[in-house]
Amino acid sequence: MERRFITFTTDFGISDHFVGVMKGVVYNINPLARVVDISHDVPSYDLLDGALTIAQAYSYFPPQTIHVVVVDPGVGSARRPILARSEKYFFVAPDNGVLSLALEREQPVSVRHITAENYFLQPVSQTFHGRDVFAAVAGWLSTGLESSNFGREISDYMCLSLPAPKAIKNGIQGVVLKVDKFGNLITNIAPQDLPQLFAPHPAPFKILVGKREVTRMRNSYAEGPAGEPFAILGSMGFLEIALNQGSAARTLEAGKGTEVVVSSSA
Amino acid sequence: MERRFITFTTDFGISDHFVGVMKGVVYNINPLARVVDISHDVPSYDLLDGALTIAQAYSYFPPQTIHVVVVDPGVGSARRPILARSEKYFFVAPDNGVLSLALEREQPVSVRHITAENYFLQPVSQTFHGRDVFAAVAGWLSTGLESSNFGREISDYMCLSLPAPKAIKNGIQGVVLKVDKFGNLITNIAPQDLPQLFAPHPAPFKILVGKREVTRMRNSYAEGPAGEPFAILGSMGFLEIALNQGSAARTLEAGKGTEVVVSSSA
Amino acid sequence: MERRFITFTTDFGISDHFVGVMKGVVYNINPLARVVDISHDVPSYDLLDGALTIAQAYSYFPPQTIHVVVVDPGVGSARRPILARSEKYFFVAPDNGVLSLALEREQPVSVRHITAENYFLQPVSQTFHGRDVFAAVAGWLSTGLESSNFGREISDYMCLSLPAPKAIKNGIQGVVLKVDKFGNLITNIAPQDLPQLFAPHPAPFKILVGKREVTRMRNSYAEGPAGEPFAILGSMGFLEIALNQGSAARTLEAGKGTEVVVSSSA
Repeated sequence: MERRFITFTTDFGISDHFVGVMKGVVYNINPLARVVDISHDVPSYDLLDGALTIAQAYSYFPPQTIHVVVVDPGVGSARRPILARSEKYFFVAPDNGVLSLALEREQPVSVRHITAENYFLQPVSQTFHGRDVFAAVAGWLSTGLESSNFGREISDYMCLSLPAPKAIKNGIQGVVLKVDKFGNLITNIAPQDLPQLFAPHPAPFKILVGKREVTRMRNSYAEGPAGEPFAILGSMGFLEIALNQGSAARTLEAGKGTEVVVSSSA
Repeated sequence: MERRFITFTTDFGISDHFVGVMKGVVYNINPLARVVDISHDVPSYDLLDGALTIAQAYSYFPPQTIHVVVVDPGVGSARRPILARSEKYFFVAPDNGVLSLALEREQPVSVRHITAENYFLQPVSQTFHGRDVFAAVAGWLSTGLESSNFGREISDYMCLSLPAPKAIKNGIQGVVLKVDKFGNLITNIAPQDLPQLFAPHPAPFKILVGKREVTRMRNSYAEGPAGEPFAILGSMGFLEIALNQGSAARTLEAGKGTEVVVSSSA
Repeated sequence: MERRFITFTTDFGISDHFVGVMKGVVYNINPLARVVDISHDVPSYDLLDGALTIAQAYSYFPPQTIHVVVVDPGVGSARRPILARSEKYFFVAPDNGVLSLALEREQPVSVRHITAENYFLQPVSQTFHGRDVFAAVAGWLSTGLESSNFGREISDYMCLSLPAPKAIKNGIQGVVLKVDKFGNLITNIAPQDLPQLFAPHPAPFKILVGKREVTRMRNSYAEGPAGEPFAILGSMGFLEIALNQGSAARTLEAGKGTEVVVSSSA
């Protein structure tokens, strides 16, 4: 038995018994494991949101942490459960692309198709692999078993990509990936996509968020004058549209999927 | 001091300080205990939902786990706090039937009226026994004390039952017990209630959910065609009405309490 | 390394990755730490609600617990991060008054301006000090470092006060501080503000909650007749307006900020 951290990222919510049961399964296998919740509020079946959530969080955890991600619209079908290992971490998830963004940043040493049913909870249901497959495998893996025990290496695992921002005349066109709890709009535009915008003294620009215009860049939320939305480099590494002590989403009537166009206004 | 798992199932929500405080009380008594949340979203005062939640979850935890269930409309009244012990687990709750379904499945060796006030947090409030009684007792129990220290055995503890499905002409009539996070409708109909429905090749049947009809059985959520509700044996061991990547509750305009009639359509 | 408890109280919600990431930061520094959530549902930027939440909860935790409170509208501005130490506990928070109510009850031995950037996660973002400053400092503090390592003592830290009830003719005027999950209205009126109301046999009184009248005091929620709101001394140590198995907030159409006037009706 080893003391090991296991994280959970799912679309299960926390109203039902699902997440508690998955923890029970882990602790019944390895009472020294430590499960930490990242989020259970991934929108139902939203692979890209799940991919973004774990990609944002995994690297802050101790080495050897096992990251379990269960957003699994194909549960019970032929989609494979997979186990990815990088130099530093393990990832357990269905093979549907939900690990793509994490594995782009954290190159895997191996990705395996989990076939060792002796590590599953028996009988395996057709509807709750979070319990019967993913939590059970994470529990056994946390005891110190080698990942080679769980199945053969594969190279054809599924990949998803974030929508890429597009270069346009005088600027770039992106999209809102997600709205956080405070109503900040997280876009898919990163500093390398438009370095001049993130320069210490950027040339004049305007940002169209849907039909509304934003023209100021701020360094912190508190810098923004009351009621005036602004752009900021957020903690996720992307351009955000924010409001000091208010919701940019509500003020700009924008949300996930809203188009964001940054262009020079010189 | 022992390393022991304690689970919490309550209707306290997680917005207030209630659950955090209960954990503080446990850890102050036994810093080696490990509290795991099952759910705090039992609808306020809903004993049957609480009973169902713990019954679904308890058996996945390590032996000697102490399950604390606080759905307690009678807090501060004469209702008794009880401690049940089975071969494998402990249960701590108010004596209002909230343990009934778990104790049906997990025969208790003893059920005791908790009267040992020396293990309560003093002074005991009239409004928060989750903190002053249940968390405190669970904390002390987790240190390895025998359950006989907490009070005398009783046999007249309260029992609740799930509504039983009724045999009708050509079939069975049940009810939706609960809607899960995905909008699946969990009924009170189990395989033993209608074995032919769960046979590998069931005879033609129809299921009326309220006024809407469902005619197909599926083995996994992913098998269902888009937009078409179907029946499935869910992970809780009951017949569920589900929809592939959608909410059966919304599509069928059904919810907790909706009547479900299964009948032969041959 | 030491086994130490750390609590989190924030306005971050639990839908995003924020809280999970903060736990990752702590465990990466001290894998033996144990993080416990108090609440992440403090309303966004609401310092007084955050202050009330931690003040209600901190004292139930084991000695040496480190309480981290992040309600931080000024993140990235000049507002200071502070570390307060009392005989029994540590508190880490932005210097914006969010610790005021806890430090009123738990006299600090020292309050320090945290300046030791070597304990911060580098580079420090301008938007997520919960991760880069507060979680990191709590992690290092939990390893057993003296608080003097983190910065110099200050005495001009910010203080907030709860709105005080006002004496009026024949009684007292207060306000609803907060509505709990059950719809109970927690006021700012404590027993010492109106001792006669909390006497075993109080003289006749009436309580105006907004425009609605409450005339009975009860000792437990279960004592109240169905549908009739009553007053009770709640577990937070304040006068509450409650309803047996129902929501006083909904029934009385009252909420945070509603005026509450207690007066003699003799």
